[in-house]
Amino acid sequence: MSDTKFQPLPGFRDFAPKQYATRDYLFRAWRTVAKKYGFVEWEAPTLESTDLYLKKSGGELPNQLFRFMDQGERDVSLRPELTASLGRIVSSCYLDYNKPFKWYEIGSCFRYEKPQKGRLREFVQFNADILGEKGSGADAELLALAIDCMRELGFSEEDFVVRVSDREVWMNYAQQNGVEKERVQDFLGVVDKLERDKPEESEKKFRAFGLSREKILEFIANPPEGVSPVFDAVQTDLKARGLGNYVKLDLGVVRGLAYYTGLVFEIFDRGHTLRAVAGGGRYDRLVSTLTDGSLDMPATGFAMGDAVIEHLIESCPAAKAQRDAALAPNVCDVCLALAAPEMRGQMLMLASTLRDAGVRVELPLGDVKLSKQLKHAERIGATFAAIIGTEYPMIELKQMASRVSKRLLLEDLICELIPHKK
Amino acid sequence: MSDTKFQPLPGFRDFAPKQYATRDYLFRAWRTVAKKYGFVEWEAPTLESTDLYLKKSGGELPNQLFRFMDQGERDVSLRPELTASLGRIVSSCYLDYNKPFKWYEIGSCFRYEKPQKGRLREFVQFNADILGEKGSGADAELLALAIDCMRELGFSEEDFVVRVSDREVWMNYAQQNGVEKERVQDFLGVVDKLERDKPEESEKKFRAFGLSREKILEFIANPPEGVSPVFDAVQTDLKARGLGNYVKLDLGVVRGLAYYTGLVFEIFDRGHTLRAVAGGGRYDRLVSTLTDGSLDMPATGFAMGDAVIEHLIESCPAAKAQRDAALAPNVCDVCLALAAPEMRGQMLMLASTLRDAGVRVELPLGDVKLSKQLKHAERIGATFAAIIGTEYPMIELKQMASRVSKRLLLEDLICELIPHKK
Repeated sequence: MSDTKFQPLPGFRDFAPKQYATRDYLFRAWRTVAKKYGFVEWEAPTLESTDLYLKKSGGELPNQLFRFMDQGERDVSLRPELTASLGRIVSSCYLDYNKPFKWYEIGSCFRYEKPQKGRLREFVQFNADILGEKGSGADAELLALAIDCMRELGFSEEDFVVRVSDREVWMNYAQQNGVEKERVQDFLGVVDKLERDKPEESEKKFRAFGLSREKILEFIANPPEGVSPVFDAVQTDLKARGLGNYVKLDLGVVRGLAYYTGLVFEIFDRGHTLRAVAGGGRYDRLVSTLTDGSLDMPATGFAMGDAVIEHLIESCPAAKAQRDAALAPNVCDVCLALAAPEMRGQMLMLASTLRDAGVRVELPLGDVKLSKQLKHAERIGATFAAIIGTEYPMIELKQMASRVSKRLLLEDLICELIPHKK
Repeated sequence: MSDTKFQPLPGFRDFAPKQYATRDYLFRAWRTVAKKYGFVEWEAPTLESTDLYLKKSGGELPNQLFRFMDQGERDVSLRPELTASLGRIVSSCYLDYNKPFKWYEIGSCFRYEKPQKGRLREFVQFNADILGEKGSGADAELLALAIDCMRELGFSEEDFVVRVSDREVWMNYAQQNGVEKERVQDFLGVVDKLERDKPEESEKKFRAFGLSREKILEFIANPPEGVSPVFDAVQTDLKARGLGNYVKLDLGVVRGLAYYTGLVFEIFDRGHTLRAVAGGGRYDRLVSTLTDGSLDMPATGFAMGDAVIEHLIESCPAAKAQRDAALAPNVCDVCLALAAPEMRGQMLMLASTLRDAGVRVELPLGDVKLSKQLKHAERIGATFAAIIGTEYPMIELKQMASRVSKRLLLEDLICELIPHKK
C-alpha cells in the first residue's frame, strides 16, 4: 500500500468520511454566520482564462498558477483565488441584484507552492465580499462577520486578533516623504515584507526611497493619533457591537496584492505562531479595472482559508472540544435487524415508510446473523435497533444507549420513531 | 459588456446567487436522501495523477481529460469522474470503517467535450457507492436511493424510468454464441452503441462476431424468463419497498466503461428526450485492479449529474413548482432601520445581540434615508423591519407582509423576534 499511486498529489488532500466531517463542521460554521449577516452564496467556475488573473492580481500569484493550454488551445488556469471571478460575475449581472451585494463563497483554490504547515496546493477558502457601498460601515460589517466566524468556532479574544491597517495612511506617508508616485506600489511591497525580510535587506530597500527602516518601524510602533480616520470609525462601530477588543491598528499589515485601496486586515492567532487565518480589505477599483472602466463598484472583502484554521482549532482546547462534540458520529436513527429471513419484504416496506418520513434508516443488505446485525447497530451509533421477526407486525424496539427493549406494533413503532429523527 | 473576458470558458458556468440557489436546492435534495439511507459524505482532490484514470476507465474518458504537466513535471488531470479516486481512497483507509461502506460525494467533474444541452465541461455529480457487500441487496438499496432522489425532487413514475440491465447476461450470451473471450468487451461496446449507431453499421459490427443485429434486437425485446436472476431479486426487493414501478429490465443498457461487472442501470425521462439523468452499476473488480490485487472489495455505485436533471426539472411542472416554491427568497428575518443617525451604536448592539441568537439581520451600512431603508427591507423580502429612533429603547416593529406596526421595548423586541428566526 506504500505505492505512490495510492497517495493524493503533494499538497492535495483526501477526505474520507472522518476527514470530511471535520471539514463540514467548518463549512457549516461559515454558512451559519454568513446567513445571520444576510450574505447569499455564489460560486465561480473552477477553471478560468489565465488573462483574468494576469490582469488583476500582480504580486506572486502569476508564478503560482496551475496554468495550461486546454484541448482548444486556450490559456487557462485553476482559480488561485475568487476575487477576479467575483468581479467578472458581478459585472455581468449587477442589474439583477439590490445594492449593496453581500455575497459569500466556499470553494477550492489552487496554488503551486511548496506544501508546508498551513499551506497546501488545493485549499478551501471562505470568501465574503460587500460590493456597492463605499462607507466604512461596510468594512465594519465585514470585520464583524470575520470575527463572528472565529467566535462561532469557539475562539475568544485570547485566541486571535485582527490586525487592521489602512493603505491610505501609507499612500499619504509616501507622498509626504517624497516617494515618487509610480514607485508607491514598490514602497508598499517593502513595508509588506518588513516582518519577513532580514533587517539589513529592509534597510537597503528603504534607503533606495530615501527612507530608513528605523523611522518606518517607529511610525508603525507609534502611529500619530487620528492617522487613519477609517480605522477609528470601524473601531467605534465594532465597539458598539461588543467586538472592540478583537481589533487593533497595526500599520505593519499591508497585504501583498496590488489591488487593495483602503482598509486592509489580517487575522492571526494571538501568539502569532501560524500564518494568517484570514486576510482582506477594500478594493474599490478592481471591478472598474476588470471592466475597463465601464462599471464602478466600491468593494471590500476577505478570504479565510481552511488549512491554518484547522491547525488553530487543534491548538485551542475550547475550540477543539466544541468541534469534537459536534463530530460525535450519529448517522442513523434506527437500524433495522432481521430475525427471520422470510420477513425481508416487510422490513423493506418499513424502511421505505420511515425514510419517507425523514428517519435515517440502516438495514442489512445481505444475509447476516442477528447478533452481527445488532453489533453493527452499536458500531455505527444507531439510536435504536428494531428487530423484525416472525411475530411481525409485532416488533422489538431496542434503545441502544440504555439497552432497554420494548415490543410494539408496527403502527406504534412508526409513531415512536418519527419524533426521534435528527 | 459583450467582451469575452466577461464570460466563463465554454462549457463552464457562473453561479451568481440566483443560479446558486437553484443548484443548492438540488444539492440539499441529494444530501437529504443520502442521509436517510445512512450514507456518509466524502470528497476527493480535484486534481489527480493522470495514471489513475488511464489505469481504470478505458472507453472515451482518456481523450476527454483536462490533462497537463504541472510545474513539478507531473502528468496530472482534472478529475473526469470520482470512482477512481474512491477506489484509491478506500484502499488507503479500509480498516478505519465498518463494512459495508455507504459513501456519497457531491462535487465538480471535468470533461473536454463539445458543450451542448445537458453536457458541460464542468458539471457536478452526486456519487453514491456501496462497497464491501456483494449481494443483490446492495444493488437494490442503491437503486432505491437513486429513485428516492428523483422522488425528493418531485418526479413521479410518469416522469422517469430506471432501465436496468445485467452484464452477466451478455457475458453468457457471448459465450453461448461463440464470441471469443478476449473479444467480449468489444462485443459489449457494440451492444452499448446499438441505439446510437446506424442500423447498417451495427449490422456490420455484429457480423464480425458471427451474429446478426436482428437476433440481438429480438433478444433485447423478448429476454427469456429468468435470464437475469439479479434483476429478478432486485425487482422483488424494490416491489417490497413500493418502488417496483420505477424499474424495468432493458438489456439494451450496457454502460460504456469497461469496469462494470454485473447489474448496470441508467435513469431516463419517460419520453427519452434527454440524455441519461444517472447511470451506474456493479464494479466488483475495480478496487482489486487499482490495488494490484492486494484488496478485494465488491462494489456498486452510481452518479447523477446536475446538468440533465436541471432540464428535466424545467420540463416537469410538478417538479418545477416544488423547486420554485423552495427558492422563494427570504434571506432576512429582520431588517434594522435607523431613523436617527445618533442611535447607530444602539442599532449595532441590537444587531449583534440578535445575530448571536441566530436571527438573520440586515442593517444600513451607510447614511440612507429611512424611506429607502424600508424599501430595501421590502425588496429583500425581510419578515420584519425594526425602526430605531430617538425614542430608543422604544422600537417600532413592522411586519412587512401585513404592514402592521407595533411599538415595543428593546427586551420585548428581542423576545418577539427570536421565535421567528428561520
